[in-house]
Amino acid sequence: MPDTIFSKIIAGEIPCHRVYEDEHVLAFLDIGPLSEGHTLVIPKEPAVTLGELSDEAGAALGRVLPRVCRAVAQATGCADYNVVQSNGRGANQEVMHVHFHIIPKPDPEQGLVVSWRAGEIDHGAGADLAKKIASHVA
Amino acid sequence: MPDTIFSKIIAGEIPCHRVYEDEHVLAFLDIGPLSEGHTLVIPKEPAVTLGELSDEAGAALGRVLPRVCRAVAQATGCADYNVVQSNGRGANQEVMHVHFHIIPKPDPEQGLVVSWRAGEIDHGAGADLAKKIASHVA
Repeated sequence: MPDTIFSKIIAGEIPCHRVYEDEHVLAFLDIGPLSEGHTLVIPKEPAVTLGELSDEAGAALGRVLPRVCRAVAQATGCADYNVVQSNGRGANQEVMHVHFHIIPKPDPEQGLVVSWRAGEIDHGAGADLAKKIASHVA
Repeated sequence: MPDTIFSKIIAGEIPCHRVYEDEHVLAFLDIGPLSEGHTLVIPKEPAVTLGELSDEAGAALGRVLPRVCRAVAQATGCADYNVVQSNGRGANQEVMHVHFHIIPKPDPEQGLVVSWRAGEIDHGAGADLAKKIASHVA
């Protein structure tokens, strides 16, 4: 896996506004925030996408996410927030190291702005697809 | 915490297209999918927002997320996907039980469509805010 700006931040080669660090996880402010308090939470394990992450790194990240969410909400005074994560260029991933964004949503114009184009499930095809996905879960 | 459609799915009172289940976590297809394979991953622990989740439930969820992401990508053949999660009505949370969406992104029109209005950090204010958030992380 090639170096990224995040692997360099983990290595201490590039500075960051750090909010949390432990053996497995680092959290710091996004320098291109969608709102005040926009924070990134990343695993130290090198992985491009969430699906490439080990059970252990995933668990370490999942344990810390609620803590950092609480802290961001408390520090900003904004109780509403989105968590978002992109995997692959087609899904708008820009830095090729797994990262979760925690993005406070103080009002409709700031923070994560999403167009939610929901379809309707076909329950027959859905039952088949669920079985197929289930068979792939290790 | 009042019942939600998700707590009823966990209790088996409402059916779902299940893709994964263990002691702490349930994953199933979203019935209003943004793309084929749109999957929800939820903790069994009752919590409205991610920030309310215990360390243990967060770790259990984080351990399973990569597995379900891999399985959705393999079953759909779509390598690109977004993970998104909403907390609070202001952030467009509709079901008041923590849930992560895994949303395949087969093309720009399908899946999660986001308007990313990035600002630029003020490094002085950022340093202060990072300290404030860090002081709130337990």
